[in-house]
Amino acid sequence: MTDTAQVTLEDIREAAARIEGVAHRTPVLRSRTLDALVGAEVFLKCENFQRIGAFKFRGAYNAAARLSPQARAAGIAAYSSGNHAQAIALAARELGTSAVILMPEDTPRSKKDATAGYGAEIVTYDRYTGDRVAIGEALAAERGLALIPPYEHPDVIAGQGTAALELIDEVGALDALVAPVGGGGLMAGSATAVKGLVPGARLIGVEPEAGNDTQRSLAAGSRVAVPVPRTIADGLAANIPGELTFSINQRLVDEIATVGDDEIRAAMRLVFERLKIVVEPSGAAALAALVTGRISPVPPRVGVIVSGGNISAQRFAELLAD
Amino acid sequence: MTDTAQVTLEDIREAAARIEGVAHRTPVLRSRTLDALVGAEVFLKCENFQRIGAFKFRGAYNAAARLSPQARAAGIAAYSSGNHAQAIALAARELGTSAVILMPEDTPRSKKDATAGYGAEIVTYDRYTGDRVAIGEALAAERGLALIPPYEHPDVIAGQGTAALELIDEVGALDALVAPVGGGGLMAGSATAVKGLVPGARLIGVEPEAGNDTQRSLAAGSRVAVPVPRTIADGLAANIPGELTFSINQRLVDEIATVGDDEIRAAMRLVFERLKIVVEPSGAAALAALVTGRISPVPPRVGVIVSGGNISAQRFAELLAD
Repeated sequence: MTDTAQVTLEDIREAAARIEGVAHRTPVLRSRTLDALVGAEVFLKCENFQRIGAFKFRGAYNAAARLSPQARAAGIAAYSSGNHAQAIALAARELGTSAVILMPEDTPRSKKDATAGYGAEIVTYDRYTGDRVAIGEALAAERGLALIPPYEHPDVIAGQGTAALELIDEVGALDALVAPVGGGGLMAGSATAVKGLVPGARLIGVEPEAGNDTQRSLAAGSRVAVPVPRTIADGLAANIPGELTFSINQRLVDEIATVGDDEIRAAMRLVFERLKIVVEPSGAAALAALVTGRISPVPPRVGVIVSGGNISAQRFAELLAD
Repeated sequence: MTDTAQVTLEDIREAAARIEGVAHRTPVLRSRTLDALVGAEVFLKCENFQRIGAFKFRGAYNAAARLSPQARAAGIAAYSSGNHAQAIALAARELGTSAVILMPEDTPRSKKDATAGYGAEIVTYDRYTGDRVAIGEALAAERGLALIPPYEHPDVIAGQGTAALELIDEVGALDALVAPVGGGGLMAGSATAVKGLVPGARLIGVEPEAGNDTQRSLAAGSRVAVPVPRTIADGLAANIPGELTFSINQRLVDEIATVGDDEIRAAMRLVFERLKIVVEPSGAAALAALVTGRISPVPPRVGVIVSGGNISAQRFAELLAD
């Protein structure tokens, strides 16, 4: 595997064909208020309207659909406490196979229920003492399952890139794309799609201030770990970039902006009140960076990936009531 | 004016042509979860995505655009503490004229600001001692303005009917349409559109339990007043049907269902968590009636008007936190 051939635009186009009719082609929303506030034409690619409520279904389904018939029939395994769990569970159901999801014991019941609701088996582990990757690999080996990781996989990355592909297909060339960075799979896929289609476009990643591992790693020229971040953006709480995702992002990403939790809250409130849509903290981070002037100069035509909308009304009320 | 010719399907078609390119053609959303919960195909016509965040812009703009050039140039007046205020303010701006809006002194600042933000002048009155209709009429006469009431006007009703027209145009015939009833303008317009296009469809209005003035009036055969209702659905807090709207609804509406505030809250939570959309209490009432089994038998293909999404994150948090 060479540096430039890990994931290609062609892989993303193939992924788009593979997920068509199964994943939603999510809407691109505009807002006069938002454009005026930012001083640009802003195009929001709304993955909060994706199946399972987040972009993760794209990569999960693409990777699962790429398994050999034998591997697929044997079943799929994944480790995740978040959106990837539901994404794999639904992908398995759509493909007529089974899924086993490794989740921390203290995962909120609502997330366990949502995952089990798609027919997946849930296996729990103690996240304070266990290593999810090692436990996940052992579980998959023992049961003969295909393990699909949340971002360190070319097929997952190619699937995540289909959101940016659809965005540019719908609105044309952009001066920049802004996307959140957790493990880096969405960013790597988006960057591959955008640089392939619009080579001059700026690729801007956004991380929580407390969890700017990719920003530091890009500055250092190699993967750097930060202390496990405390942030309301739980989907972006990675503390070290993935090896594969970092190698792609190092090549394609122009800059990383960071945002604080209060800025994320403000962006959630903005889209709630003005666009009437529900966005989870991780999903609001990219927009928060744009709205608060963390991205300079402001790109005249700018795409933003709104990555997900999985937040309970209760949690939303807690976060926004202060 | 005869009973059957107050507002016709043709008026609604003309209104649709008039608002085209100015009002949004709002999306129709579906949800697998919702369909399973209700046991029907449910089509949500999402007026929370309409300009000013509610269906009211349709009727306000249609009525304003129908004024003679002289009347329009002289300016428009309206009385409203809610969505009609912003609707008239924006309609006036779009038509290049001025608006004066009569609002209660104690209207929340955010609503005054939103209305003033569209360039309207705001005049306040004491809603405990003053009669808004009389004060509004006096103000309009004194300044030579055209007064556009929130529902007692054929052009307003025809404009409101365009939402149902678009819905059926997009999804085809329905077995029933469910819409909220406040003053009755949305219901009267929707009923005219639906009965004109699909004569056999059931027309179902929804009121708050505390404010079932239209339900009682239909049972009595004439307009009945109820005590001013206490409900979180402030847009549905009318205590007596309009004369014009009631004459239309009496002819066309098949039944009225009622819902309590807790059921409205549950429907707001449901669409927040499952559809990722923001709906104000009045906007969730029709769906609440369907989800809680207040509509029986369940129509196999049912349209629901989600009438608006104007609620602050703060107020949402207060309502849903309990």
